Amino acid sequence: MLEHIDETPVAGNGLLDRRMFLRGAGAIGLVSAAGSAAAETLMVPAWTKTPGAWLQGYGQPSRFEGNVARGPFPADLYGGIGPGSTRAPLQNLEGMITPNGLHFERSHNGIPDINPDQHRLLIHGLVKRPLTFTVEALSRYPMTSRIAFIECAGNSGALYGPKAAEGTAQSLHGLVSCAEWTGVPLAMLLEEAGVDPAAKWFIAEGADAASMDRSVPLAKGLDDAMIALYQNGERIRPSNGYPMRLLLPGYQGNMNVKWLRRIKLVREPAMTRDETSKYSLLLKQGHVAQFNFPMDAKSVITKPSPGLTMTGPGIYEISGIAWSGNGKVAKVEVSADGGKSWALAALSDPVLSKALTRFRIPWRWDGGPAILQSRATDDSGYVQPTREQQIGVRGSLAQYHCNLITSWGVSAAGEVKHVYA
Amino acid sequence: MLEHIDETPVAGNGLLDRRMFLRGAGAIGLVSAAGSAAAETLMVPAWTKTPGAWLQGYGQPSRFEGNVARGPFPADLYGGIGPGSTRAPLQNLEGMITPNGLHFERSHNGIPDINPDQHRLLIHGLVKRPLTFTVEALSRYPMTSRIAFIECAGNSGALYGPKAAEGTAQSLHGLVSCAEWTGVPLAMLLEEAGVDPAAKWFIAEGADAASMDRSVPLAKGLDDAMIALYQNGERIRPSNGYPMRLLLPGYQGNMNVKWLRRIKLVREPAMTRDETSKYSLLLKQGHVAQFNFPMDAKSVITKPSPGLTMTGPGIYEISGIAWSGNGKVAKVEVSADGGKSWALAALSDPVLSKALTRFRIPWRWDGGPAILQSRATDDSGYVQPTREQQIGVRGSLAQYHCNLITSWGVSAAGEVKHVYA
Repeated sequence: MLEHIDETPVAGNGLLDRRMFLRGAGAIGLVSAAGSAAAETLMVPAWTKTPGAWLQGYGQPSRFEGNVARGPFPADLYGGIGPGSTRAPLQNLEGMITPNGLHFERSHNGIPDINPDQHRLLIHGLVKRPLTFTVEALSRYPMTSRIAFIECAGNSGALYGPKAAEGTAQSLHGLVSCAEWTGVPLAMLLEEAGVDPAAKWFIAEGADAASMDRSVPLAKGLDDAMIALYQNGERIRPSNGYPMRLLLPGYQGNMNVKWLRRIKLVREPAMTRDETSKYSLLLKQGHVAQFNFPMDAKSVITKPSPGLTMTGPGIYEISGIAWSGNGKVAKVEVSADGGKSWALAALSDPVLSKALTRFRIPWRWDGGPAILQSRATDDSGYVQPTREQQIGVRGSLAQYHCNLITSWGVSAAGEVKHVYA
Repeated sequence: MLEHIDETPVAGNGLLDRRMFLRGAGAIGLVSAAGSAAAETLMVPAWTKTPGAWLQGYGQPSRFEGNVARGPFPADLYGGIGPGSTRAPLQNLEGMITPNGLHFERSHNGIPDINPDQHRLLIHGLVKRPLTFTVEALSRYPMTSRIAFIECAGNSGALYGPKAAEGTAQSLHGLVSCAEWTGVPLAMLLEEAGVDPAAKWFIAEGADAASMDRSVPLAKGLDDAMIALYQNGERIRPSNGYPMRLLLPGYQGNMNVKWLRRIKLVREPAMTRDETSKYSLLLKQGHVAQFNFPMDAKSVITKPSPGLTMTGPGIYEISGIAWSGNGKVAKVEVSADGGKSWALAALSDPVLSKALTRFRIPWRWDGGPAILQSRATDDSGYVQPTREQQIGVRGSLAQYHCNLITSWGVSAAGEVKHVYA
């Protein structure tokens, strides 16, 4: 019923047609490639012989998945308080959705324990009538849902460094996650408050102990901004802004202010601490790129990636995530020879604007050294740059918005390492 | 910048145009409708004055959301073991994704604690070469991702009863959930094993203490069936089949065999316990509808719904979920007058085949009694039936596949109750 097919490479070093698996893998001996043995006599396992555990009000992962966690943890300089971040374990994740327990977290002075009954959102400044909202009042408003990624502006910053940093997909790139967010369109609340035509920006402020605040163009507030109350169906987690956060699809993570308590409409950006001393991109010759908000198109291979060892020559799937803060991912290309040749990866549906997109391509590893790369192009035509291109433009002081092409080196022993190529 | 609009009802008893909110709500006084006060002086809350909590490897919901849990729990007849189910708290959820901790659970003899290193999947019977797969071997296979609902065949069965059962969206309809599933297409493994042309069905068996097994048409196995390893990005939760389950998009939940250990290709259905004594639909005059697998188009309003009290006349959003085991939701209509008149609801993107779809429509409640209903139509043209229609066809013995239109009665006091209308 499924046709047999050629296994003609579509790019150097063993990359195969992305549609190969759709047409059936019978011809290529995938089972032996994957090391499956012929049928064993199935023994009845212990857990089939005894009734299992009872039901749970709120479920948890298997105890055998305890190593799948956010991390690495920063130095705890102040005894369990202060700023920090942990990263999503990208090498252990699949698909486009990040489960809420593993969504990356970043806080500037810890994660507040907010009582939603006492929380208020104030909209004021250059408006006709200032408004205060309780969580309950907001919950009565019409809502909207969208699947969107959030990426910290500092994600992947280590790749600006002069030497290829040791690390995993998680430790190098794990400050990105994706969820279905539901909440009230900010445009609706601004309309209700009545925008003064003099207003061009707004300041969003959190109720955390850092009073984290950022300036946002009013145009974004009237476009696709959302006061998000739900994350993957349930109320937002504390580390992601409970009881509400600002969602600015595609914009740098830090602007998606968590624990949101205040939106003040103003004429000009406020030059807050977190848009001056931080989250501005140092360029060459003393220049700074400030207020560069959207996260440009990017991709990273998560399978294989450092920490996941290859178990001998044969067929593997190369899989990863791609995204763009400016729209949809139009295509992802993969190279197995360090960028000399490229092949088109398959994209998993649905491909959504400003959301993670899963890509996949089959690869026959011949057991020799290989350098794996992925390159995303978004629907604006923007192409993810090489390291040379990005550093050529930005210089060596850049810290933020790093979206250059990552290289994973595969050794003959099957070990995968971050390399520059 | 947003135009003011008429608030002309589009159906009886206050239903408003679904696009109203898209065009701006400034004209209709939504804030006062929602009871928001004019701006208070924002006090600095306690949690802004003290550093917050430290980072967590695996995040949990806010302690203030402790009441959002699966339930109700069945009688624990055997001291924490045995069969049972809990339901997703639909009235507390938003969007289309069910978070993993709240995905409904159903087990026939408890939830096994499976060590993935010892688990095996056997494919045998009418195949050219029987195959055994470890989790690790399967993990090397090319994967596919899709967002799909799973609904227990017994969901909403109480609505066949002669009197309107007291209950909530959760207790009446909570045996449905939706997640992004990732795994290996079953067709690929069957191709590898080599299907004997005599095979027309397969038996899927779980490794739980009930050895839950069901017969599935081979055609479904070669179509969109998946050996799912991931649920919303992370490994499947124990209550949903860790380390692997069968996913049969759109088919009754029980067939999506959890803790999957065996797929045996056969000529005819095996008439297992769970497709004969249960999960067959009793009809009139001694007839039984067996092997009716897809869950037909259905919808339920989750907001407002029993337990969520209305707080006075004014504008509300009516929101809910719709789905079809046969394809995409084409439209959802809502009635506020017990089915006399209907208005089209807005559907949240993305609208995906065999996935939950969120619908929304604004409603001006005048403070009088109202009966809210929703009616889904899928892209095959199938229309969700009324209670009279469904019981007229099936008779009074039916237990499964109940997808009739639910009615929520709203009293002048704002209380919402399940009613027959």
